[in-house]
This record gives sequence, C-alpha cells and structure tokens, in this order.
Amino acid sequence: MKRKVCVVVTARPSYSRVKTALQAIKNHPKLELQLVLAGASLLERYGSVVNYVEDDGFEIKEKVFMVLEGDTPTAMAKTTGLGVTELANVFFNLKPDMVITIADRFETIATSIAAAYQNIPLVHLQGGEVTGNIDEKVRHANTKLADIHLVASELASKRVKKLGEDEEYIFNTGCPSIDIAKEVLKSPKLDFDPFEKYGGVGARFNYKDGYLVVMQHPVTTEYTKSKEQMNHLLNAVYKLDTPTFWFWPNVDAGSDGASSAIRKFRENNDLKKIHFFKNMESNDFLRLLFNSNVLIGNSSVGIRECSFLGVPVVNIGTRQYGRERGRNVLDTGYTEAEIYNSIKTQLTKVSRHQDFIFGSGNSGLKIAEVLANVKLRSHKTLTY
Amino acid sequence: MKRKVCVVVTARPSYSRVKTALQAIKNHPKLELQLVLAGASLLERYGSVVNYVEDDGFEIKEKVFMVLEGDTPTAMAKTTGLGVTELANVFFNLKPDMVITIADRFETIATSIAAAYQNIPLVHLQGGEVTGNIDEKVRHANTKLADIHLVASELASKRVKKLGEDEEYIFNTGCPSIDIAKEVLKSPKLDFDPFEKYGGVGARFNYKDGYLVVMQHPVTTEYTKSKEQMNHLLNAVYKLDTPTFWFWPNVDAGSDGASSAIRKFRENNDLKKIHFFKNMESNDFLRLLFNSNVLIGNSSVGIRECSFLGVPVVNIGTRQYGRERGRNVLDTGYTEAEIYNSIKTQLTKVSRHQDFIFGSGNSGLKIAEVLANVKLRSHKTLTY
Amino acid sequence: MKRKVCVVVTARPSYSRVKTALQAIKNHPKLELQLVLAGASLLERYGSVVNYVEDDGFEIKEKVFMVLEGDTPTAMAKTTGLGVTELANVFFNLKPDMVITIADRFETIATSIAAAYQNIPLVHLQGGEVTGNIDEKVRHANTKLADIHLVASELASKRVKKLGEDEEYIFNTGCPSIDIAKEVLKSPKLDFDPFEKYGGVGARFNYKDGYLVVMQHPVTTEYTKSKEQMNHLLNAVYKLDTPTFWFWPNVDAGSDGASSAIRKFRENNDLKKIHFFKNMESNDFLRLLFNSNVLIGNSSVGIRECSFLGVPVVNIGTRQYGRERGRNVLDTGYTEAEIYNSIKTQLTKVSRHQDFIFGSGNSGLKIAEVLANVKLRSHKTLTY
Amino acid sequence: MKRKVCVVVTARPSYSRVKTALQAIKNHPKLELQLVLAGASLLERYGSVVNYVEDDGFEIKEKVFMVLEGDTPTAMAKTTGLGVTELANVFFNLKPDMVITIADRFETIATSIAAAYQNIPLVHLQGGEVTGNIDEKVRHANTKLADIHLVASELASKRVKKLGEDEEYIFNTGCPSIDIAKEVLKSPKLDFDPFEKYGGVGARFNYKDGYLVVMQHPVTTEYTKSKEQMNHLLNAVYKLDTPTFWFWPNVDAGSDGASSAIRKFRENNDLKKIHFFKNMESNDFLRLLFNSNVLIGNSSVGIRECSFLGVPVVNIGTRQYGRERGRNVLDTGYTEAEIYNSIKTQLTKVSRHQDFIFGSGNSGLKIAEVLANVKLRSHKTLTY
Repeated sequence: MKRKVCVVVTARPSYSRVKTALQAIKNHPKLELQLVLAGASLLERYGSVVNYVEDDGFEIKEKVFMVLEGDTPTAMAKTTGLGVTELANVFFNLKPDMVITIADRFETIATSIAAAYQNIPLVHLQGGEVTGNIDEKVRHANTKLADIHLVASELASKRVKKLGEDEEYIFNTGCPSIDIAKEVLKSPKLDFDPFEKYGGVGARFNYKDGYLVVMQHPVTTEYTKSKEQMNHLLNAVYKLDTPTFWFWPNVDAGSDGASSAIRKFRENNDLKKIHFFKNMESNDFLRLLFNSNVLIGNSSVGIRECSFLGVPVVNIGTRQYGRERGRNVLDTGYTEAEIYNSIKTQLTKVSRHQDFIFGSGNSGLKIAEVLANVKLRSHKTLTY
Repeated sequence: MKRKVCVVVTARPSYSRVKTALQAIKNHPKLELQLVLAGASLLERYGSVVNYVEDDGFEIKEKVFMVLEGDTPTAMAKTTGLGVTELANVFFNLKPDMVITIADRFETIATSIAAAYQNIPLVHLQGGEVTGNIDEKVRHANTKLADIHLVASELASKRVKKLGEDEEYIFNTGCPSIDIAKEVLKSPKLDFDPFEKYGGVGARFNYKDGYLVVMQHPVTTEYTKSKEQMNHLLNAVYKLDTPTFWFWPNVDAGSDGASSAIRKFRENNDLKKIHFFKNMESNDFLRLLFNSNVLIGNSSVGIRECSFLGVPVVNIGTRQYGRERGRNVLDTGYTEAEIYNSIKTQLTKVSRHQDFIFGSGNSGLKIAEVLANVKLRSHKTLTY
Repeated sequence: MKRKVCVVVTARPSYSRVKTALQAIKNHPKLELQLVLAGASLLERYGSVVNYVEDDGFEIKEKVFMVLEGDTPTAMAKTTGLGVTELANVFFNLKPDMVITIADRFETIATSIAAAYQNIPLVHLQGGEVTGNIDEKVRHANTKLADIHLVASELASKRVKKLGEDEEYIFNTGCPSIDIAKEVLKSPKLDFDPFEKYGGVGARFNYKDGYLVVMQHPVTTEYTKSKEQMNHLLNAVYKLDTPTFWFWPNVDAGSDGASSAIRKFRENNDLKKIHFFKNMESNDFLRLLFNSNVLIGNSSVGIRECSFLGVPVVNIGTRQYGRERGRNVLDTGYTEAEIYNSIKTQLTKVSRHQDFIFGSGNSGLKIAEVLANVKLRSHKTLTY
Repeated sequence: MKRKVCVVVTARPSYSRVKTALQAIKNHPKLELQLVLAGASLLERYGSVVNYVEDDGFEIKEKVFMVLEGDTPTAMAKTTGLGVTELANVFFNLKPDMVITIADRFETIATSIAAAYQNIPLVHLQGGEVTGNIDEKVRHANTKLADIHLVASELASKRVKKLGEDEEYIFNTGCPSIDIAKEVLKSPKLDFDPFEKYGGVGARFNYKDGYLVVMQHPVTTEYTKSKEQMNHLLNAVYKLDTPTFWFWPNVDAGSDGASSAIRKFRENNDLKKIHFFKNMESNDFLRLLFNSNVLIGNSSVGIRECSFLGVPVVNIGTRQYGRERGRNVLDTGYTEAEIYNSIKTQLTKVSRHQDFIFGSGNSGLKIAEVLANVKLRSHKTLTY
C-alpha cells in the first residue's frame, strides 16, 4: 500500500522550490503523489504554474481558488480563512496519509490547519529559518502545527529542535531548489533568447555583454511604502543605464503598489535598457541568473540558488533578514543611493564563490526517502 | 487616547477564564474594551454565554456565528477557516489597538491569524502550558503568531521563552480564573438550590451530606472513542450510587458521541442520584465544587481552580496531560474500574491542600496593567 | 460521450424524492451520474443518508460539509453562503455537463448559484409549486436561475411558464417519490417490526390494530414559536391515547425548539403509546404510512405520496399552504383542539381515494430521458 | 422610531445609480441610512467608491471585502458565496428594518439571500428589466427573493407583476441616475480639465472641438472572447483618429482579458488621441458625456442617462440586449467594421432627442417616500 502524499502548492516560487521533491515522490515505489494547486499558483496575474506543472508531467488532483482581491492585509487574512475551509474539504475527500506544507507564505498556514485539525500527519518543508515580516510568524506557527520537519540547513535543524520539536522528527534534507541549480550547472550557457521565448514588455537590447536581473517583492508589513521603495529601485537601475531583465512582483499585500509604481515609471520614462517579464521556467531563469552580472532585489533566490551558483547579489531591505547567506550576497538599504552604490560594488567583483549551505543537489530524493520511511504521527508534545 | 483592546471569547470556559480581566480592562482609565463573542459561546447547545456577559455588564460589540455542525475534525477545520474570514472583517471594522486570543481551543487560532495578518498586535493569554491533543499544537502556534504573552505560571513563562520569544514581552500574570475562586472563598457556602436555580434534567436528591461533580469532555483526536469512554465513566459513577451533579460535555469533535452515550444511558437506567446541568454561573459553580467531595472528569477546572480551592479531583485520561497540577489531583485511566477506584480513594482523603501555581487572585488587574503599558509591536523575530 | 449529470442532495427527504431518478440516470446509456452529498444529508442529527446511498449502490463523488450550528436564520444564510463557495469548487473540479438542484430547501439555491455562475446548464426539479415560508422564495428564485425545469404536476408546469420561462424547457415528469410509492403498493404489507429494525426511543406497544404516524417540522419564519406549536401537537396526540410512531423534526431554523419541546414532554409525561424514530428507509416508511390510520403533521409526504397511496392526512398549519392536494388531506390549525378534532374526523373515514396529481409512478425514467435528450443551454431571457 | 434602511453598494456604477436615493433616505425624518460598501466598490482596481461616498457626506457602516481574484466564473461564484456569509453577519449585527439590493450584478444576490433568509424585508431596486447574460438570471432571482419592488420604468413594473408579484408591492420610482442627469443639465458646461482633474494615462490632446467617450465592459458568459472583442473596438476607434476618452472596464469575469487587450494595444501603437481614465465623479462624467459627440460601448449609461440627456450612443453587442432604449441609441455588433460604421453614422446626426423612459428626475425622493411608508413584509406567495 503506497503512502499518499498530498502536496499543496500555493505560488510559483513554492513550485520551483519543491519540484524535484515532487518528481522524487512521483517516482518512489512506496509513495503516491496527490498534487493540489491553490491560491496564487492558479492566477495569471502572479504567474500561473498550471502549464509548468502539466509540462513537467504532474497530474493536478484539485485546483483551489481562494485569493481575495484587494492587495491588503485584510484580504490576506480572508484568503487564508477561505483556504482552510476549502482545503479541509479537499483533504477529507482525497484522504492522504500525509500533507506537505511549504515554507512560510501567509496562506501556507491554511494547509497546516486543514491537515492538523483532521489528524492527518503534517510535514513542513523549510522550517527553522529566520526572516522578518509576517513570514516569520507563519513559518514558526507551521512548525508548531507540523509533525515532521524537513529543513534546508544545519542551522535550521538546530532551531527547530530548540522550538521544542523531537529530534527524531527533524531531517536536514537541504532545499530542492539547489537540485535544479545543480542540474543547470551541467549546461550553464544561456541557450535561449529571453525576448523571443518569454515575450514580456519593454525595450529589447543587446544583453550579450552582461546584464542585471531585478526581482523585488513588496514587504508586507509596510505595504503602503511599497510604491515608494519600488521607485527608489527603479531610479537606481535606470541611472545605471545597463541592460536589465526585470521580473514583476509576487502576490502579497503591497504588490499592487509596487506594480503601479512600475507602470507609472514606464509611462514617464523611456526605458531603453529595461525589459519586464512575468515569469520564466525555472531552468531558464537559473541560466539567466548564472550568466548575469548581478541579481538585485529581495528574492530568496538570491540567498538560496545564487549562493550555490556563486552569482553576486544585491539584497535590498529586510525581507531576507535573518536568513543564512553565502559570500555572494551584499546587503543594502532601500534608498536609491544605497542600491546604486551596492550594485556598482558587486559589478567590480572579480571572482565568484560557491557555498553549500542549503544542500548539495540531491534534496528531492532525500525528501522522498524520508516520507517513505518516517514513522507517521499526528500528535505530539513539546519536548520541554 | 485609550488603547482599544479587542477580546474574542469563543466558549463558555474561556469566558470564565478571562472574566476578571475583562472587568479590569473595562475599568482601566487607559483601556477601552471591545468584546466579541464568537463560535460556541453563542450556541445554546454548548451553553451560550450571552446572558452571563450581559448580566456582568459587558457590551457585546459583535457576534460571530461560525460553528459548523457535524461533530467531526473536518467541521473543526472549517469552523476555524470561517472564523478567520469573519474575524478579519470584524477587526478591520473595529480597528482595535490590540487583540487578545485566549489559550488553546482549536478556533482560537482564527483570532490569531485575523489579527496577526492585519498587523494588529496580538496578545496571547495562557501560552506555555503543555497538554496532549490538538490543543497542544494550537497553543504553541498561537504563541508563535502572538507579539505579547501573558502566561499563567512560572513554568509556562519559561517555556514561552524557550520557544524563542523575547523575555521583554512575556508576563506571568497568573490565571483570572483564580481571581474568581479567591472571591468565592470569601463566602464559600452553597447558598442556592442547584435544582431550582438551574433546572437541568434528571433525578432530584438530597445533596446536603456530600456529593460528586462530573465534568468530562471528549478528547478530540479519539472522537470515535468518546462514546465508549463516556460509558465507562457513566457506569463507574452509577455504581458509586452517590448524589452527583453532572455537566454536559463541551463542543468539540466527539461531543455528539459523548452526549448520545449519556442520553442512551439515561434511557436504559433509572438514575436516581444523578442530575444533569448544561452550565452554571461561574461563582455558583465554584461554590458547588468547593462543597463537593470530589470533582471527576477532565476539565481544566480540576487543575486550575480546584488546586487553589483544594478540592479533591479525579482527573481522567490524557486531556490535561502535561499541565502543572497541585496535590489535590489524582490522575487515572479511562476504564470503569480505574475511575471507580480513584473516586473511592479521593473520598477517603481527610485533609485538603491549597496550591498557588496559577496566581494568587489578582490576575485580572495584572493583565489590564500590562495591556495599558506594554510597548506594542506587530513584528518580531526568533530570539535564536 | 455520456452527459455528466451532477446531482446535489442536501437532505434526507430530498434523497427520497429523487432516488428513482438517480437510479434511472445511473442506468441510462447516455448519462453518467455524479452524486454529491452536502449539508444535512451528511449529519447524523438530521438523519444522514450516507448509508442509504451506499446501500442503494450509488457512488458518492464528493461530500460537502456546510451546515452551521445555531438553529437560527443567520446560520441558514451562512450555510448557504458556504455552500456556494464549496460547491463552486466541486463543480469546477467535476466539470459536469449539467447540475441538478432539487426543489426548495433553503440551501438548494447554493447549488443553483454555483452552477449558473459557472455557465453550467442548471436543471431544477419540482419548481412551480406554491407554499408559504422561505421555501416559496427559494423555489422561484431557483426557477429564475435554472435553464431547464422538470416539474411534478400540470399546475406547476403552468406556473413555471407564467414565470417567464420557455415552454420548450419545461417538462412535467411527475415526482420520483410517487415511483417508490407505486413500487410499495405491489407488496404493501408491513413486513418488518419497526421497533426491532429501527430502534428509536420510547415505549413499545401493540400497533397491529391501527396506529398514527406523526411527522411535524418547524416552520422557519416562526422559529421562536416552534416550541409552542410542538407542545400543542404533543398534547393532542397524548390525549388521543392511540399507538403512535413519531419522527423527529428536520434540520431548519426552529428545529432545536421543536426537539427540545419533545424532550421536555417526554421528561414530564409517561408516554406509553408513543415511540420516536429518527428516520426510516423510504420503502419501509411508505409501508408504515400505508398501513396507518392517519398521518399527522406538515410533511410534504402527506401531500405527495399519501395522495397517491390514499392515506388520510391531518395537515397542520401553513407549511404546505398552496400545494395541490388530494382528497385524502384534511387541513387544520396549530391548536391542540383543532389537531385533536381533525384526527378524530380522519379516524372515522371509511373509504380511501387515490389521486394522481404528481405522476403515475414512472417519473425517474422520464427525468433521465429528458436529461439525455434536452438541448442544453446556460443562457436565457424572460419570455415577456 | 426611524426605519433603519441598510443599502449594500457593491460597485461604482451601482453607487451612481443609487446616490440620490441615499441622500433622500439620509434626509428623510422617518428613515435612518445604514450604508454598507462591499465587493468591487472597495477595490482600487475597479474604481473604489470610498472617497466619493465620504465626499458626499455618507457614513460607511461596514466594509465587506469579498472579491476573489482570478477573473473566472468560479471566482464570481465564490465571491457571491463569501458575500452571503459575511453580509449575514453584517445584517445580524446592524439589525436593519429593511435591506436594499441594487439591480443585477452577480453579487447582488448575496445581499438578497442574507436578508431574505434572516426574515428582513428585502427591497429590490430596478427589477423587471430584460438583458442577456448572467445578469438576467440574477435580476429575476432577486425579484423572487424580494418583498418590495422599486422599478425604473412602466414596462419593468408590468414585468414584475407578471412574475407573480403583488401589485401592491410594486412601485415605479424611476431610476435615481436620472436625478443626477437632471441636475447636471442645469449647468451642463464642461467646467473642468479632465486631464488635470483625473490624471489617467495616455496622450493629452485638444478635445474642445468634439470627442468620443468609450466605456466597454466584458460580457461575462463569453469571457474568453473579451480580449478579441476589445481588440475590435480598439482598432475601430484608433482608425477614427478622433480625440477619445476611454474608461477602463468593470470587474467581471473577462475584465482581465479586456484590460490586457488594452495594455497590449497601447504597447504596440502610438495612441495620440486616446486617453484612459479609471473613473470619474458622476457629475463630471455626465458633463463629459453631454458634451461628447458619441458614447461608444455597452455601458448601461448609454441606455439610461444618455436617453435622458439625448447623447448619441453606439451600443455594442448583447450586454444591453432587451433593455428599453431611447431614440439616441444605435445598436451594433462586435466587429471592427460594424463599430466603425456605426460611430460614423452617429457622428453625422444633427439633432438630439430626450426620452423620459426611466423617470423625470425625482426618483431618489420617490424611493425614500416609499421606504418610509410601505407596509413591511418578509413573507409572500406567488400571485397565481
């Protein structure tokens, strides 16, 4: 009898971060994958993953629409409430042997509650990390609701133990995103034309002699400021006058502010060296990063994949605060001047360094192995 | 400008446990109380608190219906989801300066999410304790979502700190339920006739020469067994043939099983010495306990108020597992024989002992004082 | 390619009323049945149909928990809202070619909205009838949301046409409940012992020489009065001192009032000739009715099946107001005296009359035939 | 004791359509206004009305966030379900004497259910009209749920009566939107600079010598085609090369398709004579219309206000199908050629005609008068 593993993916970045684990679960003789797509992962506006998932050969068991409009903290809360209600039904009908909730996006707690309250063993991926924002609260609350912890680094493992969890149920499997990065390193050349393959909007330019990549998401607890912060970044990059590929912000309270700042800036300036994409297939994206001069923004990709790839990163603001980082990262503030200067600094770097904080590229397999063999439980007690 | 303190009460026991704090908040010159009644606290079936609250002179700002029928884990999850959605709106419209979530019932996490996701400082009462069941997960998840922790004992305070919370935001205020118990001790005589004042169903008998009190709730993760467990208890008490006041079980997955066991037992047996109540005003209830020979069941009242009052308790099963307890408590298993023998043992005890684990009777005032003066925050980071 | 027909059953009476149609859909070469159980149909308290459905050989595609506790109009509204949200997801995932909503219970509009808003052809069963209460509003609103109308009588057919619907999409198929009644008439003897087969609570008595059946549901818009109304009925029946089989009330605002009236009455009186059942398999129930002297209450069974069977009925109050009825029905008011006298009158009747208002017993087959061949649409315009 | 009138506004156009009635209710000595803003009326993306409402001096009693993202029929259904659930609570807490639901947007049925199921007298504005689409179903379902009908034309009044409603509860009050149009006619000059006052995006041009106005919303049941339809319109208007003020589409399934068509078109063409607005204060908007050469699109403004104002309209497609219209309207199809030619035709018209189908400008007062004096009911029966 195979163990039914229900994985709930709620956003594009979560999908990338779990893809090799999905593959390994699907291929494992003792496991059966039940993939549920929910929330922003279904919405074009934030980069639907439906096509990617189907291209990757996964069957989608259920689609759960649950995102409330309005780009406000109130909408975030309601989205989460709706998610609990709907996912409760999904789990009731799918009857999985375990449910996997991923990392720390606000709506991931909906998965946790729907599973834990129905006494289904809950597996939490990538707990034990530290950041700022609401993510911080959500991640550790997920840990407290979860029965089994698959963490991405040694430090994370130690923190989960300190949080009162049984050592026996904590596994450092590394992060599956590193598996993809490792795969990409086997043929790292930029073998596609970004303009042609991904369309997007904005200028087309020569990027063969180097380019920047920007990926900046709004910081939820300061959502009214997201417009202003985005303007600083836009001005800094504009001033650099360097070929730049820019990715639209994620769904989150604040994203409408950030998006509208970009739209306004495009109206009022002639951006000859900036092109905007909604998203990109992850292998292509990693190749684009690997061949870039600097990644700018606050995406976790800068901390995770880029530390493994050795790509220089300018990490803006508090969003990645507290996360372990490699030698590739230069932290900076929100002002135009800070951002501008930090990019300049990174551009002058000569050598690159690979770090293996988040695993060495076999995380998906490790995860499947744990899921196939771990003793299941849906009941636990604080260790102290 | 007074600080607006929104307290969400979701069940009768929570109301008793927070009442003196509500009073102290209402009376504090720097605080304004916004009382929200939600969930089971509005339902007759589980003992509505609406009348009590109004009699106690509190204004109810909003009533939130959110309990799904069905007495199953799925219904618990959905109730919680619905609660998040509705409470999000309530907080949006009331605009409190802080929100208080109480202890560890499953739906209390709805309050936590609705507040935390809207960046409203969240105060958690009575974290840091240890029990079995889903409560255990919920309580610590509440701690991880909360910004300010008002705990009920020294040990709880230490645990919350270990969970990675700032010492600066942890306050041992004791439990407000002890305030009421202290008040009751000033005039402890049973000054009312339970049959007359509270009606209820079942036999009427002479209770002047001693009696038992029973309060046993279903254990959520074993809800199919709740019928069987209740039957053991019913048989044990029936066999004792002693005057007994019995309180109906709480809302929880399993409660229908427990209730139906009681109904069946009443059909099939002539219970000449057992009378059943839905609930009782808390002062009356404490007097009833103080004058009883033994409290039997798994209610937290046995652990909390009874340790302060020194009433002998037979505590059945795992529900209070892990909680600190006084010398008054005798733990026992679920079988008829275990229960019967434990009650017999407690009945032979000669002297009583008071313990002050959960405060000495001024907890409500302490809580109000903290709320009036604590530095508010809605953003935090793990301490390690 | 078979047409996928999704039928949403939300309560036990609806199941009986649609069962032969389900069978006919299941057996039809051009149709595929997708049966969804929702709401009260899943709850023990109101008589779960899960076992019946499985015994009858139907596969349950999804179970949707959506009933809010509280026995109030507010809970009815919220149950409906939750139903829309959840059924929207169910239809999205099942992708039916048409959806069937049944009659006029309050939550049936949830099915209608979830289908109509997703442009799925909506079939409404048993529109065009007239009653009092919220049912009246719900039924005609269902008609206005539906694309195809399968009505149960000629008069109903005329009313739906008057409501502005295309004649081409109105079909008088009769009511499937009559199919079962017809089947039962083939072997009408009471071939089981109700006490043994269905348990229930209350006295056991000799029923061979005649008995009454009572089935009285609360009237929603007067839910505070449901306790009082039930008391009148209880007194009238008690006074008759005749063997009586009594069925517990349905879920509806008011049902807790009605149930508690019954419980109280049982506490305070020694009911030697009344036995209470939760529910009964429909064939058995019809046999019980056929062999009874009078059916008392406000159930639609008195109007429908009993007119076909020719069983004398005392129909109490406004609940069936406006419905077509046969010569078997005697209408009466809510007072004890009215009820008592009407039962007496019916008991003296000598001959019985069959009427064929709601079909002649092949309704299920007719319905399946329409569904297999009707031109589907999800878009319509008022005919005037 | 004033009658409490709760009005639920769910979108900007509904607000304009009810504004003078709100004013008249607020000023009426026997009425008290409880204004609830819900759904799209709170969202910037569709033109929030919060500022307008506050500028107009109305107090907002509650704000209800309920719109699901995703621009799909599934999201529409879920939005409605969520609306029922939340509005049920709002009405429970506000305790209005009657609730007003406006016209036929999909989510207006949420207001109807939440009120009707709680036995609150429901007033429906602007029933009895005929259109295509889901609106058609929703409008008549609202009629069947409502107790009191305030319709906008004689023909509508007749239709509501035919739908089986009591004449005694049908009132032809005209449409409040005409009140505003009448007011505007007192000083019809374009007394503001649209570019300066409303910003917007796109070219600035000389509009003093005539201009077009475009307002085209997606047609819900054909949402995949909304992109294509919008492209036809864009091409037709672009080819005309005339100064044009263009308003972004409404929230509705399909709106993302329509919006993205506009964005793409702007990317790929240099639109020197088209300027885009999100929305406009209604008086300004009516002045803009009155001074325009032609209004193009499918907005109900073309049918209502413009018939009163006598502004030539090119009405595209099926959205206004079935509505009564004045001599000012020229209906046309979706293709570029049809649209282009129809605009040309309207541009050559010499004289303008006013029609008074929807009232003569005192509708708000009439509505308040009815609400103050109508006999309230929450219970009705079909008239046939």
